[in-house]
Amino acid sequence: MQDVFHAKTKLLDYVDGEELVIIINEEQAWDHGISAMDKVVMKYKDTDYVLDVSLSNKLVKRNEVGLSEDVYKKYNLGADVIVSISFTQTNGKAIDALKKALGGKKLNYEETKTIMDDIGHNRFTDILTTYYGAIGFFKKASDKELFEMAKAMGETGEMLHFDGVVADKHCMGGVPGNETTMIMIPLLTSLGIKMPKTFSKAITTPAATGECVNVLMDISFSKKQIENLVKKNNCCLVWGGGLSLAPADEKLIKVAYPLSMQSYSRTVVSIMAKKYAMGINHSLIDIPMGPTAKVPDMKTAKWLKKRYEYVGKKLGMKVHVEITKADQPIGAGIGAVLQVREVLRVLQQHELRPMDLQNKAVYLASKIIELVGLAKGKKAYELAFNQLKSGAAWKKMQEIIKAQ
Amino acid sequence: MQDVFHAKTKLLDYVDGEELVIIINEEQAWDHGISAMDKVVMKYKDTDYVLDVSLSNKLVKRNEVGLSEDVYKKYNLGADVIVSISFTQTNGKAIDALKKALGGKKLNYEETKTIMDDIGHNRFTDILTTYYGAIGFFKKASDKELFEMAKAMGETGEMLHFDGVVADKHCMGGVPGNETTMIMIPLLTSLGIKMPKTFSKAITTPAATGECVNVLMDISFSKKQIENLVKKNNCCLVWGGGLSLAPADEKLIKVAYPLSMQSYSRTVVSIMAKKYAMGINHSLIDIPMGPTAKVPDMKTAKWLKKRYEYVGKKLGMKVHVEITKADQPIGAGIGAVLQVREVLRVLQQHELRPMDLQNKAVYLASKIIELVGLAKGKKAYELAFNQLKSGAAWKKMQEIIKAQ
Repeated sequence: MQDVFHAKTKLLDYVDGEELVIIINEEQAWDHGISAMDKVVMKYKDTDYVLDVSLSNKLVKRNEVGLSEDVYKKYNLGADVIVSISFTQTNGKAIDALKKALGGKKLNYEETKTIMDDIGHNRFTDILTTYYGAIGFFKKASDKELFEMAKAMGETGEMLHFDGVVADKHCMGGVPGNETTMIMIPLLTSLGIKMPKTFSKAITTPAATGECVNVLMDISFSKKQIENLVKKNNCCLVWGGGLSLAPADEKLIKVAYPLSMQSYSRTVVSIMAKKYAMGINHSLIDIPMGPTAKVPDMKTAKWLKKRYEYVGKKLGMKVHVEITKADQPIGAGIGAVLQVREVLRVLQQHELRPMDLQNKAVYLASKIIELVGLAKGKKAYELAFNQLKSGAAWKKMQEIIKAQ
Repeated sequence: MQDVFHAKTKLLDYVDGEELVIIINEEQAWDHGISAMDKVVMKYKDTDYVLDVSLSNKLVKRNEVGLSEDVYKKYNLGADVIVSISFTQTNGKAIDALKKALGGKKLNYEETKTIMDDIGHNRFTDILTTYYGAIGFFKKASDKELFEMAKAMGETGEMLHFDGVVADKHCMGGVPGNETTMIMIPLLTSLGIKMPKTFSKAITTPAATGECVNVLMDISFSKKQIENLVKKNNCCLVWGGGLSLAPADEKLIKVAYPLSMQSYSRTVVSIMAKKYAMGINHSLIDIPMGPTAKVPDMKTAKWLKKRYEYVGKKLGMKVHVEITKADQPIGAGIGAVLQVREVLRVLQQHELRPMDLQNKAVYLASKIIELVGLAKGKKAYELAFNQLKSGAAWKKMQEIIKAQ
């Protein structure tokens, strides 16, 4: 990639809705053969930002580039800094692979990787990303393809690594009030299990883990800060969007959003790619099954269970899938603050604690205890239960809140 | 659709690459619940323009909307005119139909129509349009579905109507120098056949009919002007992009462009929809077949021939498909000016005229003469040939040039 020109950034009072547009002086663009709707790479301090080009002679002078507020916010950039602007274009190999897949043919790992790489690094336009998204609806991917998609997706962004047993609990979601994570993490880490927990913001429930955790502590941390939190407390409760884990996932979700529909197999890819990038090697997946949950019936739940187990195993994880009944909200409170109050009541063993929430959390925690090999069956359940009863989980939670 | 607010247009010195963006004052947008990336309808003089929203407090004041140069050019709008801004959103039925099709199910006519309508009227985002485009690669449409797509696509834009026999000649293209249209139109209209000929700009050849005709005369006319030209001369040679014929086609081509790939069946839909909207009832389709043409082999050519014939018949046209050998350029000149010189030499029966071009034009013209029932076989060929030899075609061409 060759440098084209250097320019000073100018903050324009302009919101483009995360289209991430750069405005280049029209004459200067013309000199360099850049057109509106091209993509360029803006380089600043060894980081590349891929942006869509618009042109203007009045908004920006030569050797100035205009950036919208979205770009400033997203990348936390300063105004009046010197950046270099160079061409980008999608990898020809990625387009060839995409055409091959649209033609109904199977892709090998290298081909899947080159597509994920271009999507993850914003070199694919929305149109190209949508073609790749559309394939998920039409063509039933083989288990091997799902694994290769998850691996490629995980490897195109930031990757974390922790020594030893690293466990995670993931809930497919879709049921309000189902806030077991905030009970399970302190409970399990108080037993010495390492759990670097990331979560996304609410997609399908009124308040997901992110919103709930944020009631008590900060959730945005850098890779370095997360590594320090895990070193200190054996765990973290952080928002994954602050990291660049499996960045192609976010783009694929963006093009799935207008349909409010994602294929089940792509959901498996999305979740497992993020666990893999996070360095997880023991994973419990909770599939709530019920008429209003994401998974409406046992047939779908079992199909998903097999895919999670296969993909996880190939990615080097021990995976346990629990299919849980989800025919009504859990606990009595819906909404972040009320849900957090219920979580705290369980941790504090308050007499008004919701027993359904406690029971689900202890049960799922016992499954992770089994997964990492600390105890089995009734012993595992008792071990989990005692961490609540003894106050060890509540003590751990206070340490976590202090650290974050 | 309810009016939201009125505003004065402001021309911003800004090229957005035909994204067709409207910039709305951020506070005002907030008051009306409009966000960046929404689509709004801008109404001016009873015409609706659907535009993508960006927000700014500095570029535009309250009750001002900023428009890029692209919007001004495309819609030929004035600055400082009062427009009304209202919400738009895609028809929920179209999204439901799209999901159904992505699920592999067949759509009925109403469902196809609602999708074409939203695409054609810019209510579908690029992402949604791409999903519909992607289906063309995966799922082999039935002949009935192709017909319904062409009908729906044709009916969602402007439609022209002419009395009696209305003929057209269309070449699928892909071979340089293949400029028979400019010979055939004056030749055939000098026999009294009505031929309102539209063309697109070059996609696959160095200079297509549009570029060639434009060497001699104007090619951009309104619907009304075209009707007058046909009334006067029995024909026109005009750029179809100036009309809004089958407007969904242009959007579907836009999302096919980054792949430089369109499915054959969608090509049939695209071509027949435009003929249908143009009021054609006798159509000759020339499929050049050869290693570098769009159609590389006889199997594909024959498959296409059947689809053109079926869809045409269902749209009420008489269709004749000619598969022509296309293994080398035709004529000696490549490029608009040289090709036009060769066309004129054929019309003028100049001694240096390219005989391969003349032969192909006369042969194809004889097929249209057969199609509309003026003469058959050898008689048709002689009739066509005589219009060249007698100078009647050349005389007609001069009238056409004068009129345009």
